[in-house]
Amino acid sequence: MLFHVRMDVNIPKDMPKEEADQIKMTEKAYSQALQQQGKWRHLWRITGQYSNISIFDVDSNEELHNLLQALPLYPYMNIEVMALNRHPSSVRDSDA
Amino acid sequence: MLFHVRMDVNIPKDMPKEEADQIKMTEKAYSQALQQQGKWRHLWRITGQYSNISIFDVDSNEELHNLLQALPLYPYMNIEVMALNRHPSSVRDSDA
Amino acid sequence: MLFHVRMDVNIPKDMPKEEADQIKMTEKAYSQALQQQGKWRHLWRITGQYSNISIFDVDSNEELHNLLQALPLYPYMNIEVMALNRHPSSVRDSDA
Amino acid sequence: MLFHVRMDVNIPKDMPKEEADQIKMTEKAYSQALQQQGKWRHLWRITGQYSNISIFDVDSNEELHNLLQALPLYPYMNIEVMALNRHPSSVRDSDA
Amino acid sequence: MLFHVRMDVNIPKDMPKEEADQIKMTEKAYSQALQQQGKWRHLWRITGQYSNISIFDVDSNEELHNLLQALPLYPYMNIEVMALNRHPSSVRDSDA
Amino acid sequence: MLFHVRMDVNIPKDMPKEEADQIKMTEKAYSQALQQQGKWRHLWRITGQYSNISIFDVDSNEELHNLLQALPLYPYMNIEVMALNRHPSSVRDSDA
Amino acid sequence: MLFHVRMDVNIPKDMPKEEADQIKMTEKAYSQALQQQGKWRHLWRITGQYSNISIFDVDSNEELHNLLQALPLYPYMNIEVMALNRHPSSVRDSDA
Amino acid sequence: MLFHVRMDVNIPKDMPKEEADQIKMTEKAYSQALQQQGKWRHLWRITGQYSNISIFDVDSNEELHNLLQALPLYPYMNIEVMALNRHPSSVRDSDA
Amino acid sequence: MLFHVRMDVNIPKDMPKEEADQIKMTEKAYSQALQQQGKWRHLWRITGQYSNISIFDVDSNEELHNLLQALPLYPYMNIEVMALNRHPSSVRDSDA
Amino acid sequence: MLFHVRMDVNIPKDMPKEEADQIKMTEKAYSQALQQQGKWRHLWRITGQYSNISIFDVDSNEELHNLLQALPLYPYMNIEVMALNRHPSSVRDSDA
Repeated sequence: MLFHVRMDVNIPKDMPKEEADQIKMTEKAYSQALQQQGKWRHLWRITGQYSNISIFDVDSNEELHNLLQALPLYPYMNIEVMALNRHPSSVRDSDA
Repeated sequence: MLFHVRMDVNIPKDMPKEEADQIKMTEKAYSQALQQQGKWRHLWRITGQYSNISIFDVDSNEELHNLLQALPLYPYMNIEVMALNRHPSSVRDSDA
Repeated sequence: MLFHVRMDVNIPKDMPKEEADQIKMTEKAYSQALQQQGKWRHLWRITGQYSNISIFDVDSNEELHNLLQALPLYPYMNIEVMALNRHPSSVRDSDA
Repeated sequence: MLFHVRMDVNIPKDMPKEEADQIKMTEKAYSQALQQQGKWRHLWRITGQYSNISIFDVDSNEELHNLLQALPLYPYMNIEVMALNRHPSSVRDSDA
Repeated sequence: MLFHVRMDVNIPKDMPKEEADQIKMTEKAYSQALQQQGKWRHLWRITGQYSNISIFDVDSNEELHNLLQALPLYPYMNIEVMALNRHPSSVRDSDA
Repeated sequence: MLFHVRMDVNIPKDMPKEEADQIKMTEKAYSQALQQQGKWRHLWRITGQYSNISIFDVDSNEELHNLLQALPLYPYMNIEVMALNRHPSSVRDSDA
Repeated sequence: MLFHVRMDVNIPKDMPKEEADQIKMTEKAYSQALQQQGKWRHLWRITGQYSNISIFDVDSNEELHNLLQALPLYPYMNIEVMALNRHPSSVRDSDA
Repeated sequence: MLFHVRMDVNIPKDMPKEEADQIKMTEKAYSQALQQQGKWRHLWRITGQYSNISIFDVDSNEELHNLLQALPLYPYMNIEVMALNRHPSSVRDSDA
Repeated sequence: MLFHVRMDVNIPKDMPKEEADQIKMTEKAYSQALQQQGKWRHLWRITGQYSNISIFDVDSNEELHNLLQALPLYPYMNIEVMALNRHPSSVRDSDA
Repeated sequence: MLFHVRMDVNIPKDMPKEEADQIKMTEKAYSQALQQQGKWRHLWRITGQYSNISIFDVDSNEELHNLLQALPLYPYMNIEVMALNRHPSSVRDSDA
């Protein structure tokens, strides 16, 4: 089941650089693990912004919430979720 | 080069059904041709709405505009375009 | 899987009364059938508005979209969908 | 009498973890007591957000205000209230 | 129980003047009857707009919805409802 | 002359409790004096929010501004003013 | 007493040209009479829009409403009213 | 050439009172000098807000920007600029 | 003097094609004449929309308003004007 | 390929003046280098605001993102990007 997620990151300017770097490194590893498992199907940067557009492929709303809440950057992000469906004009059976 | 496009369709309620069906059929064929060519990389329906989220992979803004303007439903759609980049945490070389 | 759906109804003022009454009657029957099946778990009127707040319990985004799209009033409604989760503080196992 | 309440929680990032945990624990106990009494009829998490959608069943606006104002997280929440009615198409006498 | 209601009136410009006058006359009589009964406690015009701010004193959300839905101008109005409480600093026991 | 005023209070979370209590106590006394004089005709709490809806009856914009600016909570409030008129359908000569 | 008024004019495109010209001519005469009387103190066009910013100097909200409602273009305008005060830094006693 | 400028002032609550008073005094002197020169044609307080509506009469966008940027309160204000024209219905040759 | 202008075109769907084509042809000629004279310095299409971003170089607000109001598509456009200045970091004396 | 970029600068008020001056000086040098290379085609100040409108001419979304992210003021700016096309009515072959 597909979901469109937009994440806007806003790290406080007074967070020490080492702490921020540590969180971003953990975030990257976590994100790449989910991509390898096929849960986080797409991940794009929005041009000019510290924001991304992501497509998740999960079994339930519950699973999506748990994945998002576990993001190391979760406390510093604004997240918007939008449910998606396969489009009747898509040429692929599963357009994930 | 990737672009995130949202299309909200609003066909006038007084358009004769045959005319609307004809436009939708042409739209579907046109969309599928672009998908086959790899220009229209993803096409999802937003749950509960007559709207879609699409990812286009084009050579320029010019090409994107021409593809969108040629959509049979173009006169009946509201379109929003957002430029995308490969994300530094993506596990794929070309995450199209 | 639960979804929060808001529907704002806007029937054109020039629709003949019989046609409008017919659509509303079919809508009511359809809605009540879905409620009996447990798909449409709650249905409330927003005070002072021709709008409702509904809770759907479905197996997938796909199923929700199909149920909504089949609403007789669908062409005359603005619909907003929001995915929900069981809340960790809820006292019920399945707070549908 | 039913009310639809949306609560968005925003705990200051510099609040000591013990203090935050204490408030959340008290909040959970308070919320569950109200649920047991049938005042707080439903409580759902919005997917991907530190927010909930709740349905309250109270005798008056006054009672609702007092219940909300007594929430341990009240100083850290943005709250929106919307009055609800039984819907004429609901299949239940009291769709709380 | 008090509610703050804002009504913005928008009568279609092509409605025949007699029909519009008839609706407005019925509206006025209906409004004045409710004022006499103490249900519609205050009624003010917003300066420069075809809109009013009203205070209703009713027994339930249900009663408020029924009163509003029965307004002769109801099909031509946008209505917003906001629940009110007695304010702890008010000098009157029942500041209706 | 009547004005509709909405005040949203936002006291900084780091203000010492004694200071906040002192300001609120002075605010209450000030508000009640204006109510006794008939300047502050109505004062209602918005359900679920630290906000009020007030009706002022003053001689001029100047007088209203001076009354509002002298509120002890003025530095911590967002204030919106809307001019009101007697409504032609009101049953009272002076619906203050 | 001063008020800041913004008027956005929106004449229906299907109104016959003679009718529109007639309304605009009456509007101009009416506006100029009020300017001569000192009620309508300033009248500016917003660059690039069929909109104006006006300053009215009236005795009451009531008077302002009556002047605005009598505008020949009133049914075709969106109007916003904002109460003004003399500014304490103004160099003029009555900065109308 | 006329411009409509709205300034919303927001002095940080932790600025020492002497510093704030000093800035406001300088601001007042600066504003009055510009009024005397005929550059700052009108200056009104918005009722109930720490905001003003001003009309500037300058030779160019450049001059306007320089005047605004030199305001002592400039770092603490949100400023919106709107170009104005003489209105064809104005009774004055130069309605500044 | 430079102005940033955004124009969103919205031609009624029921305008006969010949009439629309005629207006567009006149618009194009008019626009190109102004470009040749150096008044309309830049003209760009917004990707995916029937909208443009333009830069005008005019002597006054008055001149800009007259140029815009004379656009053949003026009755079918929404126009937003924003005053611009030379930027202190620009490498060109006159960055028009 | 052209992009329209709006940057709103918001330097924290508690940043030491030397630090702010240093960042602005580096920003200016960086911006002028990009202008010299023809990447940053236009740069205008919005009248009355610490904001600019810029036109970039780059080979890809990727290049634009990298240029923007490298701005010394990037952590203190809100940036909005909009893709542009040559306009069919433009008199210039490449209206950059």
